Formats: sequence, C-alpha cells, structure tokens
Amino acid sequence: MDTKDRNSRAPVARRKSGQPAAIDRRTFLARSAGFAGAAAAGLATKAAAQDTPPAVPKWMQEQGSPLNAYGQRSKFEDSVKRYVGQPYGAIAPGSGASRTPIQELEGTITPSSLHYERSHNGVPDINPAEHRLMIHGLVRKPLVFTMQALRRYPMTSRIGFIECGGNSGPNSLSPKPPQLPAGAIHGLVSCSEWTGVPLATLLNEAGIEAGADWILAEGADPVAMSHSVPLEKALDDAMIALYQNGERLRPEQGYPVRLLLPGWLGNANVKWLRRIKVTQGPTHAKDETSKYTDPTPDGKARQFTYVMGVKSVITHPSFGMKMQGPGWYEISGIAWSGAGRISRVEVSSDGGASWRDAALQGPVFSKSVTRFRMPWEWNGRRTLLQSRAIDEKGRVQPTRAEWLPQYMPQQRYHNNSIQTWAIEADGSIANVYA
Amino acid sequence: MDTKDRNSRAPVARRKSGQPAAIDRRTFLARSAGFAGAAAAGLATKAAAQDTPPAVPKWMQEQGSPLNAYGQRSKFEDSVKRYVGQPYGAIAPGSGASRTPIQELEGTITPSSLHYERSHNGVPDINPAEHRLMIHGLVRKPLVFTMQALRRYPMTSRIGFIECGGNSGPNSLSPKPPQLPAGAIHGLVSCSEWTGVPLATLLNEAGIEAGADWILAEGADPVAMSHSVPLEKALDDAMIALYQNGERLRPEQGYPVRLLLPGWLGNANVKWLRRIKVTQGPTHAKDETSKYTDPTPDGKARQFTYVMGVKSVITHPSFGMKMQGPGWYEISGIAWSGAGRISRVEVSSDGGASWRDAALQGPVFSKSVTRFRMPWEWNGRRTLLQSRAIDEKGRVQPTRAEWLPQYMPQQRYHNNSIQTWAIEADGSIANVYA
Repeated sequence: MDTKDRNSRAPVARRKSGQPAAIDRRTFLARSAGFAGAAAAGLATKAAAQDTPPAVPKWMQEQGSPLNAYGQRSKFEDSVKRYVGQPYGAIAPGSGASRTPIQELEGTITPSSLHYERSHNGVPDINPAEHRLMIHGLVRKPLVFTMQALRRYPMTSRIGFIECGGNSGPNSLSPKPPQLPAGAIHGLVSCSEWTGVPLATLLNEAGIEAGADWILAEGADPVAMSHSVPLEKALDDAMIALYQNGERLRPEQGYPVRLLLPGWLGNANVKWLRRIKVTQGPTHAKDETSKYTDPTPDGKARQFTYVMGVKSVITHPSFGMKMQGPGWYEISGIAWSGAGRISRVEVSSDGGASWRDAALQGPVFSKSVTRFRMPWEWNGRRTLLQSRAIDEKGRVQPTRAEWLPQYMPQQRYHNNSIQTWAIEADGSIANVYA
Repeated sequence: MDTKDRNSRAPVARRKSGQPAAIDRRTFLARSAGFAGAAAAGLATKAAAQDTPPAVPKWMQEQGSPLNAYGQRSKFEDSVKRYVGQPYGAIAPGSGASRTPIQELEGTITPSSLHYERSHNGVPDINPAEHRLMIHGLVRKPLVFTMQALRRYPMTSRIGFIECGGNSGPNSLSPKPPQLPAGAIHGLVSCSEWTGVPLATLLNEAGIEAGADWILAEGADPVAMSHSVPLEKALDDAMIALYQNGERLRPEQGYPVRLLLPGWLGNANVKWLRRIKVTQGPTHAKDETSKYTDPTPDGKARQFTYVMGVKSVITHPSFGMKMQGPGWYEISGIAWSGAGRISRVEVSSDGGASWRDAALQGPVFSKSVTRFRMPWEWNGRRTLLQSRAIDEKGRVQPTRAEWLPQYMPQQRYHNNSIQTWAIEADGSIANVYA
C-alpha cells in the first residue's frame, strides 16, 4: 500500500490540553486521512482483482420487500434494545426505568423507539382529543387548552438531551463496578429534536399575578407525577413539547404533551402534562421530597438540584465489545451539560495520568448531546480509557474519587463522574473504578 | 384578558424583504408574545375556576402500560403514514415510491419510519455479516470492507436532506392541480442525522490512479441500482453512511450501508451499497439514461443534473386541513437547497403580489431542511398562500410559470417551483396553479 506520500501531510492530530478542539470538516478529513494512511492497513481486505465486481448475493436474485406505510428496522438489529428495569416486577410493571443502549448508537439523535423511559406507574393511553392542559393558580385568567388549540400557537424547535437524575446510579450504588454495557449504566440520557410552544407564551396569555415565583407541573399518568419548577425557568427556555424527532411525542415520552426544561433534571420535565399551577413557593410534591433529593455528609439534603452536571462517557469501545487485536480504532462517545455547550472533551488512555483533546462533532448545541471522536491505536496491552468533559461555564467532569465525598453513601442521583473502561490484553473490556 | 401592557413591547414582527430573517430565541419569544397578546383570545378556553384542577380522566385511574424494550407510537397516530405509490401493482410491489407526510410533521428531522423510499424492485433483506463493500477500478489497491471493518474508521455526522429527482412531479405532470396533501405531492424529501465514514478516507486508502475522474456506485438490490458520480464530489463531502437518526440505517434507506451525497439527486445516493468503481468518465448506467434526465425544448436532454434546487413548501396550513374560522394561525413549512444554506424564506398571502420574511428556525445547516414560521391572521376571505426560498448562493425559488418553459412538457424531475395553497372562505384548502 503506497499511501505514505499522499497522507504524509495529514498526521493524526495530537493536540495538547489547552488548545481548542473544535472540529471542522477539513480537520476531520485530515485526521481521517492520517488514520487511513498511517494505520488502516489490515482493516480492509485486498480484493482479488481490480475489475471483477463482488459475487452476486442471494438478495439480488429475488424481488425485495414491497413499499410500506410506516417502516421498521431490520430484523438483524433486533438485539439493540432498551434495558428494562422493573424493580416491582409483576405488581407494578410500569414502575421503573428503561435505558437507552447508547453503546449501539452513533451521532447525537436517539431514535424515539430507544429513548429512555422513567415511569412511576406505567404509560397512560391518552386520547389526545379528550386531553386538556390547564394553566391556573396565581394567574389573572385561568386557561384550558385543547391539543388542537396548542397546535395553532407559534412553535419553536431545539435539539436537546433529557437525563434522569438517577442516571449512572449503578456506578455509585454498587461497591464493585457493575459489569454492564454503557447503556445499562449511563443510558438514562437521550437526545431528540423537540418542537412545541414556548411555555412563556401561554403563561403570558394567562397573566401572572404579583408574588408568583414557582409553578407546579402535573402529569396525567396514574400517579399524577408532579414537580415544582421556578417561574424563572418556566419563562426562560421551557417548552410545551408536542413533537419529538418530527412526529408527535411517543407515549413513553409524554404523548400528547410534555414539559421540556432544557438541561434540567429529567423528572421535572413532566410527561403527559395536564396542568400547570402558578404558585408562590414550591409545592414540595411527593416526587420531589421522597425522591430526587441529595443527602450530604452533614446530615442535610439538597433539594431542587435541577441543572444536570457536565458529563461524558466513551461508548466505543466499551463493555461488551471485544477488540479485534492491536491496531487503530476510533474512540467515540457522548458529552453533555445542563449548563450550556460542551467546550472540550479530553480522553486519557492511561487512567487519567495524561489527557488529549478529542474532536467535537459540530455544530455543538447548548444543553444537548455532543459527539466526540479520537482516532486511537491500541498497542494490545491493558489500557484504562477515560473521557472528561468541560462545558462553556468552565465546569469540569469530576473523577469518581472527587464526586463521592460530596454525598452520603448510597447517593443515587447526579453521578456525573468519569467512567473508566479497562481494555484487557485479551481484548475484553471491563468497567473499573479508578 | 389584560395582557395588553405585558405584551405591547413585543408586536408581531413584520419584516420587509431585504432584511435578514435569522431568528434567535429572543426574537422568537417576542413574536410569540405578540401573537398571544394581540390575538390569541379564542384559542384557549377560560377555566371555570382558578384553583380547581381538571377532572381526573380514566387513564389516571388504572395502571399504565409496562416498560418496553423498543417503543412504538400511539395508536391515535396510526393515520400518519407514507403515501405508497406502486405503479406496477402486484407484479412489482417494490417498484415505486412512498412519500413522507410532511404536513403531519414538525421540526426538521423526519422519523426514520416515515422517511420517503424509492425502490426499483423492492427492499433487499441484507444480512450485514455477509454484506461487503468493494472499492475497485482505477485504484492502486482494490479493497473489500466488512461492515465491522467500516465501523472502526473515523466517522462523521451531519443533518441533511435527501430529495428524489421526481419530487413534486404531480404538480407538473397533472394538467389540473392535484387535490392531494402536501406530502403526497412534495413528500419525496426527508431529513435525517446521518453518520458514517467519509468516502474520501476509503478512496485515499485504495489510492486513486491518474486519469480517474468519476465513480460508479452500485447497490445490492435486485436491480443493482447504479449511478455515476464525479470524483470531485466523492472526495468532497460524500459519506459512506451506516447510521440514520442514531441507529443503523433502516432497510428502506439502504441497510446496512448507503452512499450519501449531501444536497444531490436522491437516486445518486445509492442504497445497499456494494461497490464503488473508480472510472474515467461516467458509466451511463441504465438509471441515469432511461430516467433522471431532463428534456429541454430544443430537443436535447440534460443529464447529471445533480444539485437539487432551492425550494420550500408551506406544510401548515395546507390541503386536507380545515381552518377553524378567522383568527391567528402559525404558517409553518420547510425549505431546503442542494447548494448550501437557506438564507431567507418569504411568505405571500396574496398570491405573490407582496411578500414578508418568515422567521427561520436556527441553527440553519447547509444542505439540510430548515423550518420557517410566521404568525398570521386569517381574515376569513379567500387567500392564496405561497412561500419562496432563497439560498446563500442567491438562488431564488421560481414560480411555476417561470419553471415550466425550461423543459419539454411532461418533465417530471427537478420541479422546485412555488406551491400555492388557496384557503377558501369556508376554511377548506385547495392546491391551485398560480
């Protein structure tokens, strides 16, 4: 293979920390060319002859499937599933969570069929023609909206993540690192294009009374999931979301209407939204007192910790995959922050002793998932892979050792600490605490 | 309703043509507030009492559905379907096209289940473990790639549209305007986040021989769909796409691997890609000679018209919807250009006599779908609604009268002319030629 000259101008970029890591197409192509030129030998097979097309497979010798009205994925992808956790089994099969298999996905959008779900007593089967959204409480004119009326308001779209407060809990609750795929540990985060009506539009129409400073959002599921939200957020970028990835919301994500609070605790993004009550002070509803609070070593508990931390996880390679021998791979993963844009993701292949900047796939959105990538040559020896995200506010993803002492033992929420994957000499991959 | 003071600082923006139309969140909120303040009375219903929650519906009184591994949409959305056109009926049910119901969607992403499909003899049922991609022809080292090998290369993502050359054909082929929903006329365009390997990486690894200036891409479907592509495009932004909206490609969109040529004629984005042959000159394959050429009035035919035109269509309101009486609505639609970014979309409510700039939902991507929006008050009289897109290269979407004379009668490809919807006094909506 004689590509040395062709590619010698484009070595694999090895930026030092401190340099910006924005990736544009030119940079990306240069890095890719470096990958191919320096190292790709062995990934592809040399064809037998230059002018002979490949053999004709059986699926070219028979008619294919007819056109259809609503497509489904290939049967060869059936193993890509959400990790369903139903701790109350047959008694309450709708109480629990299912996690996105993030290690099987690429890019930033989560297919709606694989968006994580967290339900407290199952998914209600709501008829949108009968569903209503009420805005009441400390307003001059309490209002009731049909779904058809909401459709007439000016809408807005944004690509953004939602993350459950309990995401990554297995890595803090389990004394030994759980040997689970990335999605079974960190898959309570997903990312969609959301479209709907700014909540501010509707609150302004109702007319907020003096003294109001919070809202209560309530869902139409059997537990009437309720959460308090500061009015300031409700008037900022909160959305009454009607569409997810182009089509109407999926049932598990709140059909026909949910509250979207970009960057904030998943539980507060109330699904199946049926009312918003404007209040003075928070309501202290059951789900924001019995759960989703953070006990600290001084015996107190933090409440209303809404802004999700800066976080990243390497999805490829990760637990459950098997390295195909020494050589070149792309390290790829996702990063996000509830406070704004990801500004940098660093990758370490020596357990945090040294770091290199990964490339960020642009455009980078605020309060959204950002894909990071780095070409990497595995030398065949045991290696500890880590990623560390930094956001535009300067917040840095902590190590597990930095994160744990902030809380009482068995803290299950807001674990944004660094994930370590150990690549063993035999090519298997383990979850380790480091 | 006393919101006049609250909203008087934020009237509905009415920009003149010539002013930029970028929308940011502040602008959007101002416009939305104007909508709500000036006009929304009548969309919502005044609630009976300020502190009484809405009645408890039946779905709050029973357990909801259990968690599940791969979600589906609500049964109440079953009517949202692709428009399946199979001109050869039972003989070749896989030859034809199905169109995206664009008038039912919002935002920019098309759900993969509703992405348009165009197949020439059905969708092959490809086992990815057996599928291979070959690069051969005028290369120094012909290569064969497994799907597993492709997965190891550096990848890139982009949000972009694909449009069939035959999109909007009904509006040129039919002497009278077809009374069909927007999707049944213009739904051969869809937009996804695509992730894969830059084709340039693989071509550089194979090593392009001197004199090569085209490639031939061939699919593994029963017709071996083939299309020639200039090498310049192949080395620019062409992608070997493996993922669509986060998950592996859907079967109808080329599982397990397709060619993606951002902004170019859909047919050249060869699905089920099995080989790329590097050539000198184009191959003149059957599908680029018998079809997808554009006969002109001088008796010749244009071939290889790849860059898709600048185009827009209002999806809301549009045919099949019924206005709910005079008052405020949001006009919303999609715009795209194969040559780059949409820079402006103008809307006319008087059949093209006058125009106002719509707001563009940001961020605006190159060679992607852009959503435009404009709050609008319908006066209850017959109205001709149109949208006109302009791209960053200064290309302007033509009227139907400007577009038609460029071609022989019965030209079916590249119809990017302006769509006119007539809103009748009774609130029904018709397709008209204007």
